[in-house]
Amino acid sequence: MKENENKTHLGDMPKEDFRRFGYEIVDWIADYFENLENFPVLSQNEPNELKNRLPKSAPEKGEDFSDVIKDVEKLILPAVTHWNHPNFHGLFSTSTSSVGIFGDMFASAFDMKAMLWRTSPASTELEPVVLVWLRQMMALPEDFSGIIYDTASISTLHAIAMAREKLNLSIREKGMSGRTDLPLLRIYCSEQTHSSIDKAVILLGLGTRSIVKIPTNERFEMDAEKLREAISDDKAAGFLPCCVVATIGTTSSSSVDPVEKIADICERNKIFLHVDTAYAGSAAIVPEFQHYFRGMERADSIVTNPHKWLFTPFDLSVLYVKDLDLLKKTFSLVAEYLKVAETVTNQMDYGIQLGRRFRSLKLWFVMRYFGQEGLIARLREHCRLARLFANWVDDSPNFEMLAPVPFALVCFRACPQTTEDLDAFNEKIMNEINASGEAYLSHTKLNGKFTLRLSVGSIRVEERHLEKVWNLLNEKVKDAVK
Amino acid sequence: MKENENKTHLGDMPKEDFRRFGYEIVDWIADYFENLENFPVLSQNEPNELKNRLPKSAPEKGEDFSDVIKDVEKLILPAVTHWNHPNFHGLFSTSTSSVGIFGDMFASAFDMKAMLWRTSPASTELEPVVLVWLRQMMALPEDFSGIIYDTASISTLHAIAMAREKLNLSIREKGMSGRTDLPLLRIYCSEQTHSSIDKAVILLGLGTRSIVKIPTNERFEMDAEKLREAISDDKAAGFLPCCVVATIGTTSSSSVDPVEKIADICERNKIFLHVDTAYAGSAAIVPEFQHYFRGMERADSIVTNPHKWLFTPFDLSVLYVKDLDLLKKTFSLVAEYLKVAETVTNQMDYGIQLGRRFRSLKLWFVMRYFGQEGLIARLREHCRLARLFANWVDDSPNFEMLAPVPFALVCFRACPQTTEDLDAFNEKIMNEINASGEAYLSHTKLNGKFTLRLSVGSIRVEERHLEKVWNLLNEKVKDAVK
Repeated sequence: MKENENKTHLGDMPKEDFRRFGYEIVDWIADYFENLENFPVLSQNEPNELKNRLPKSAPEKGEDFSDVIKDVEKLILPAVTHWNHPNFHGLFSTSTSSVGIFGDMFASAFDMKAMLWRTSPASTELEPVVLVWLRQMMALPEDFSGIIYDTASISTLHAIAMAREKLNLSIREKGMSGRTDLPLLRIYCSEQTHSSIDKAVILLGLGTRSIVKIPTNERFEMDAEKLREAISDDKAAGFLPCCVVATIGTTSSSSVDPVEKIADICERNKIFLHVDTAYAGSAAIVPEFQHYFRGMERADSIVTNPHKWLFTPFDLSVLYVKDLDLLKKTFSLVAEYLKVAETVTNQMDYGIQLGRRFRSLKLWFVMRYFGQEGLIARLREHCRLARLFANWVDDSPNFEMLAPVPFALVCFRACPQTTEDLDAFNEKIMNEINASGEAYLSHTKLNGKFTLRLSVGSIRVEERHLEKVWNLLNEKVKDAVK
Repeated sequence: MKENENKTHLGDMPKEDFRRFGYEIVDWIADYFENLENFPVLSQNEPNELKNRLPKSAPEKGEDFSDVIKDVEKLILPAVTHWNHPNFHGLFSTSTSSVGIFGDMFASAFDMKAMLWRTSPASTELEPVVLVWLRQMMALPEDFSGIIYDTASISTLHAIAMAREKLNLSIREKGMSGRTDLPLLRIYCSEQTHSSIDKAVILLGLGTRSIVKIPTNERFEMDAEKLREAISDDKAAGFLPCCVVATIGTTSSSSVDPVEKIADICERNKIFLHVDTAYAGSAAIVPEFQHYFRGMERADSIVTNPHKWLFTPFDLSVLYVKDLDLLKKTFSLVAEYLKVAETVTNQMDYGIQLGRRFRSLKLWFVMRYFGQEGLIARLREHCRLARLFANWVDDSPNFEMLAPVPFALVCFRACPQTTEDLDAFNEKIMNEINASGEAYLSHTKLNGKFTLRLSVGSIRVEERHLEKVWNLLNEKVKDAVK
């Protein structure tokens, strides 16, 4: 056997280059964070501008990596919407901490796929430990076990799949087609529930007609009495209630469903209760906000996303479940090439994905670097800033609040007396502010009104950033009324 | 409004610290790669060893980040199974390149969620461009559009969801429960098909009884004639064929289903054809291997995983589909807070996940740094090494091949004449080698025989690594027969 003649040409990047370019990228990111506020929040690119600047084919020969980094600066950067910018107030303001990036660096370097324990003991064992830490911080009882997925959409998909499995209708084996013995299954949620519920229900083959959207009250909270009626009506009609999804911190307005009342109804009717607190769940670590989460401990499953408001880079969503065996029963399948002797947890048994990234590492870094106190202090400050902004709105004759502010999302609108079409006016000022690159606000509709949404959640946000938005809004109103 | 008094205590890590720790981690990873071969491939930890060494709660106060890095070295590293080790030959040998890590660093730092175009123009536009590049390299026709998901399990889930939607049975709206008008839907695949098909079918509510596992021939390839018969029988029984999954490069033995014949059958019967080439798809970029992929161009959808054999860190799976509108029709749902004016592609419309990591960046880096020639040369070399190893097996009286080697996976076993129970013997030597940390082999069962699997795919693998495994195996046999 002769020595492989090609080996000098193959393999990975030389290690000196890894170090050199690695440092360069660390510097690049450090500079990027330092200069964040000089960038427009929303990319100012036109659609297809980046696409049209890229070659139509991959290069035949490898390129110098310094050219690639130059293109990140020249081509990619202008096409970036800066989620980390402290004036990113659209959707939910999410941002990564530095140590979160470090966690991802190690995870990418190890490149483990956590399917079997043996293929990734580190991920298999760190994950439940970190999720016990988070569970304690959220004041959830010990009977919840956690598992990390990529997104809340996937976590919720698993929750509803568990609810379906729990019905004991042999859907795992027999499926739902070609059967005449299955009643219509029903999933209950409020009108304010996130679209991921609809997508999960579609994927699971339950169909959008199985979703019952319960009306909400004037605070956009599910009307528990209407839920009770809907379940009662469905039962009378021969339908089978499968799952109720309650939300703590809805996407539109961050409203809080009455989970205790909903849990009562679920218990009485033996219905699986899933609590979607993908956004607000992080706030459960703040003692004075724990009252919003009352009743959550009675859920069968809970989704919370540390990638939203716990400074952990995307993606890292946590599903807490009471019955881990049910989750396993829903999905476990072991092929011969995956059979091993150890009696250990194999993460592949707990979901649709076989391999998993080593996601818990970055959350571990975040928890250790900031500590419980540091995380609580940051979330508390964001909520303080949101209430402060809400006070400015309340105190102004030209603006009005359109929803309560339980956490750090402010729903409001401009309402200058001289303006007739407030929907059009608010849309216009939002678009102007967004187009300016100074800040990013998004919108929703509440009670038929075009509503501006200002979310406070960036690890880099300070009071002056909210002052900036407030001044921008007031200038727009002043321009309009003069 | 007074200046926020807390701001000096809050916020992110100081930028000097980001730089300092960033450099330190780059150095750590560089050293790690340099010393890879000194680590045992499989972690030598006992189950729960890491778990038992970790505190039971998150720290109250933030810790110095240098202590966290020390714990990565002390606690995490011993619990790592080194997928990047050139003697990781188990499952499929996958590994990350340095530039793949760089791609993830930028992606984590930008922390964009590609849901709407405006929230991530860079990801929304780079992704299709990179996937056109890959499509060209794989010699796929222009009528395929690509989309990136996290894993093949998710890609395949979407493919089968599309197949179900294409039946026009209003399953998206009406679901499958509470109906008497739906025939039993059927999904066809071979006995060698990956377990992700079963999981997808379970999740989609089709049930495991809807899966028809077609027997394979002596080369572990689907018997197309038996597929034709099964479809014909099902139709006669009133069942409705929904989807055929053909595999190019099965997980057990990397066998290749006769896709041209299968495509003929699908066309004749108007059945959706999904090709699972999650592992082997990368080899389609090597001209002399393209013959294995004949017929793939006729599929409705194809999954290939650059995170497997294209040196891209986990996770990055690609789904190519002919009918992107069908994919959109299957999933698109737009909530008010996500409505925007631009007529652009919004990636959230093409799958279950609403947000997506900026995954295309790392694949772009890989393609540019290695170039088409560099990637082809590496895959070609891996296949050469696998054939070389297979030749050693063929030339030895103590070993025998158990499957053909179309790509870079060798299925074989030791068969010393003096040994009676070959299954037990092969399992024993595999376990001994794996326990030694010198190399990692996995196993499967082929024709009832316990089969050793040696996968060649690490970017760091050289001929000497295969020699090492070969020597280890021969020593084990020598020990046993003496």
